[in-house]
Amino acid sequence: MDAAEFRKRGKEMVDYVADYLEKIEKRQVFPDVEPGYLRTLIPDCAPQDPESFEDVFKDIEKIIMPGVTHWHSPYFFAYFPSASSFPALLADMLCGGIGCVGFSWAASPACTELETVMLDWLGKMIKLPEEFLAGKDGQGGGVIQGSASEATLVALLAARTKTIRRVQSEKPELTEADIMGMLVAYASDQAHSSVERAALISGVKMKSVSSDDTFAVCGSALKKVLDEDKASGLIPFFFCATLGTTPCCSFDKLLELGPICNKENIWMHIDAAYAGSAFICPEFRHLLNGVEFADSFNFNPHKWLLVNFDCSAMWVKKRSDLIGAFKLEPLYLQHHHQESGLVTDYRHWQIPLGRRFRSLKLWFVLRMYGVTGLQEHIRKHVRLSHQFEQLVLQDERFELCAEVVLGLVCFRLKGSNELNKALLKSINDAKKIHLVPCHLREKFVLRFAICSRTVESTHVKFAWQHISQLATELLKTWEQKHQQQ
Amino acid sequence: MDAAEFRKRGKEMVDYVADYLEKIEKRQVFPDVEPGYLRTLIPDCAPQDPESFEDVFKDIEKIIMPGVTHWHSPYFFAYFPSASSFPALLADMLCGGIGCVGFSWAASPACTELETVMLDWLGKMIKLPEEFLAGKDGQGGGVIQGSASEATLVALLAARTKTIRRVQSEKPELTEADIMGMLVAYASDQAHSSVERAALISGVKMKSVSSDDTFAVCGSALKKVLDEDKASGLIPFFFCATLGTTPCCSFDKLLELGPICNKENIWMHIDAAYAGSAFICPEFRHLLNGVEFADSFNFNPHKWLLVNFDCSAMWVKKRSDLIGAFKLEPLYLQHHHQESGLVTDYRHWQIPLGRRFRSLKLWFVLRMYGVTGLQEHIRKHVRLSHQFEQLVLQDERFELCAEVVLGLVCFRLKGSNELNKALLKSINDAKKIHLVPCHLREKFVLRFAICSRTVESTHVKFAWQHISQLATELLKTWEQKHQQQ
Repeated sequence: MDAAEFRKRGKEMVDYVADYLEKIEKRQVFPDVEPGYLRTLIPDCAPQDPESFEDVFKDIEKIIMPGVTHWHSPYFFAYFPSASSFPALLADMLCGGIGCVGFSWAASPACTELETVMLDWLGKMIKLPEEFLAGKDGQGGGVIQGSASEATLVALLAARTKTIRRVQSEKPELTEADIMGMLVAYASDQAHSSVERAALISGVKMKSVSSDDTFAVCGSALKKVLDEDKASGLIPFFFCATLGTTPCCSFDKLLELGPICNKENIWMHIDAAYAGSAFICPEFRHLLNGVEFADSFNFNPHKWLLVNFDCSAMWVKKRSDLIGAFKLEPLYLQHHHQESGLVTDYRHWQIPLGRRFRSLKLWFVLRMYGVTGLQEHIRKHVRLSHQFEQLVLQDERFELCAEVVLGLVCFRLKGSNELNKALLKSINDAKKIHLVPCHLREKFVLRFAICSRTVESTHVKFAWQHISQLATELLKTWEQKHQQQ
Repeated sequence: MDAAEFRKRGKEMVDYVADYLEKIEKRQVFPDVEPGYLRTLIPDCAPQDPESFEDVFKDIEKIIMPGVTHWHSPYFFAYFPSASSFPALLADMLCGGIGCVGFSWAASPACTELETVMLDWLGKMIKLPEEFLAGKDGQGGGVIQGSASEATLVALLAARTKTIRRVQSEKPELTEADIMGMLVAYASDQAHSSVERAALISGVKMKSVSSDDTFAVCGSALKKVLDEDKASGLIPFFFCATLGTTPCCSFDKLLELGPICNKENIWMHIDAAYAGSAFICPEFRHLLNGVEFADSFNFNPHKWLLVNFDCSAMWVKKRSDLIGAFKLEPLYLQHHHQESGLVTDYRHWQIPLGRRFRSLKLWFVLRMYGVTGLQEHIRKHVRLSHQFEQLVLQDERFELCAEVVLGLVCFRLKGSNELNKALLKSINDAKKIHLVPCHLREKFVLRFAICSRTVESTHVKFAWQHISQLATELLKTWEQKHQQQ
């Protein structure tokens, strides 16, 4: 395929993508296929000779689409949103065309520098303390990670190295392995599984801190477990606070937790993967109060800020802490400008070496929506979740399971977990909308997350009517079964 | 921006990318900018109100392009190639449009299933032993990682968990921390820095194994260090063999190393990040002999197989080993089909949770080039490196520093490291071509890597004439300086 054919086919693909997104509402949100469906539809091995674009193109509808879960359907209310917008798609086309690999400043200066400046823009939008910004000569700064999991891992590794160095300077008789065996990381019992995973990867212990009745960790809960662990000779070194937990979007109490972490030499990382985007609205910014105590902060514009996956924004107060955890310099990666204070080599900030030009997506989206456009997007989603909340509240068969703060509603039928599992199954089997569940304490709970960029009040109303009707049918047969037993 | 405007702007972007790639030869391969250039060109913060696409679009040439290192210029001979092709760009547009996040089978069945099948296609193309393929019910299989660094890390973590479990079952008196402190990973002194980094992240020791005169690790070198370490109570658990090292594209001796690793219960991972693509050609496949002894194997189609970054292909013989190192199952990630043997949840195979639909790129590229088209691409690059090799050999001021096997030529002026540093500086300062150096033992060496999809014999000839002329000028002034001293 030469450039001339790419011009033709690229334009066809633009139309295909535009059609797909314009008419996505007509597709069944969750596919009908069974595991293994795809292997039966395509050959056993790659073709020896080239096939035409037409051949490949017609297979998209035949082979791929029947197995796609349509994350951008307005009937998709599962997990958390994954962002999609036209400006981001355009930026990704440019990113692919340039195709640079920006692991160091020299590998493509624009790729590194735009990222630093965009993370400053974004940091200012959520009013991060200035220490987290790179500015012209700051000690902090931001980086785009692939996912919040990576941000948590990188923060934990930086904390691990920093703590090992500190403890070794205080107690030179201890080996690195001794210290590793004593380190403990903490997060809420509501925290994302990626925190436990980061500890597993890094080879350190991790403990859950009990959340309170609002599913938030408060200062006294953390203090209690720290005191116990210190008394038994362990070294607490890392706490991951969550703003907007995955099960029910609860918020750990930063203003209580931060001072404790600072006093105890514990690195506080904040995972606001989903909720962080909301902090661009002044009415939600108070949820971030206490960030001034943190060492690192992360949220995912690829969730809720209309920047297509992947774009996970992470900031640190001291970039030297991150770099210190990783820095290794083979000659083929050194370059002329390296010693200048202005130069950032992002490979020292992340797990992979290579990196795409992802800041283009931020640049396009922030400019083409403007802050006000992005605020409107957030506010619409929050409005829709409150609409759903009201619908739940008006039906006394149902109960809400957690406060609705942003775009997530946790709800269930008053009744057993089995009943609610049956309800979820009937919802997802019908495939008109798509939801996933969570556990809150012992309760099996349905999560209704406002996800799609194009979701409107009518979709929410439809979803509720559908759920309500399925509940009516379910309760009828459920009572019959119960009577028979 | 609505779908209608996206249709218009998307087509403009397709043309921009086509223009960029068609005329890339006319751009200076390495930019003129100094660190900090970009911040002076753009506002301090994001705009409140939306800007037009035109405003953003015109800034691409004004702000971005002056700072881009043009990786796809035919005058780019630095690092290793980063792949770019039109079919891959088309697939990435589709990937962005679908915008699913395929962390589990249910999150988008097509995303998972196409990946499994494409990795089987690719595995067959390089004649991997069948144990590495997923097939219909195999124990092995492939996954797309973001980078070779991540593949190495994932392999090392799987090996770590497996070894800890084995040692704990043999010596229940040892704690996990005790065992962690005894584990040692190994790789060649020529291995990529990502191996050392993987060990650093995982909190285990790593040691270099001396390579021989051909910069390859042979069996006796590994055996020697293993014997020493076992004698001092350490537990060797992981060896990363490299096929196609970054400095000079040397090949560790798998057929000697594999049986040692198997006998000693050491996980052998093979990093063939660059060289792996060449194994689709029968004449290079012998370089992979010995892979049958490995536990995991990785190469980067995003380097040399025309699949745009990121697409790092990794295979394991036992998928349960990878999953065992990671598996954590919160309820919101569980799904109905989970217990079926047919279902793959790729989040258990990797560091991040989220993942894009990257297998579309492989599908488009493998079908639209065909095996023969991809073989042609590899063979052209190897031919061009041998052309450059011949030019070096014909000039007796220069010497070759390593055997030219694939697309990399390591060479230098006969003379001091300072002289060669000065030569590289004059080459990169002139900015007509771009190279990076390496060290081979004590020697400072220039690396000439055939990179661009569109590089031809004329570009190689031009590069050599240019280098040769700069060498002539340099040697003149160098002798004068020398005489004056």
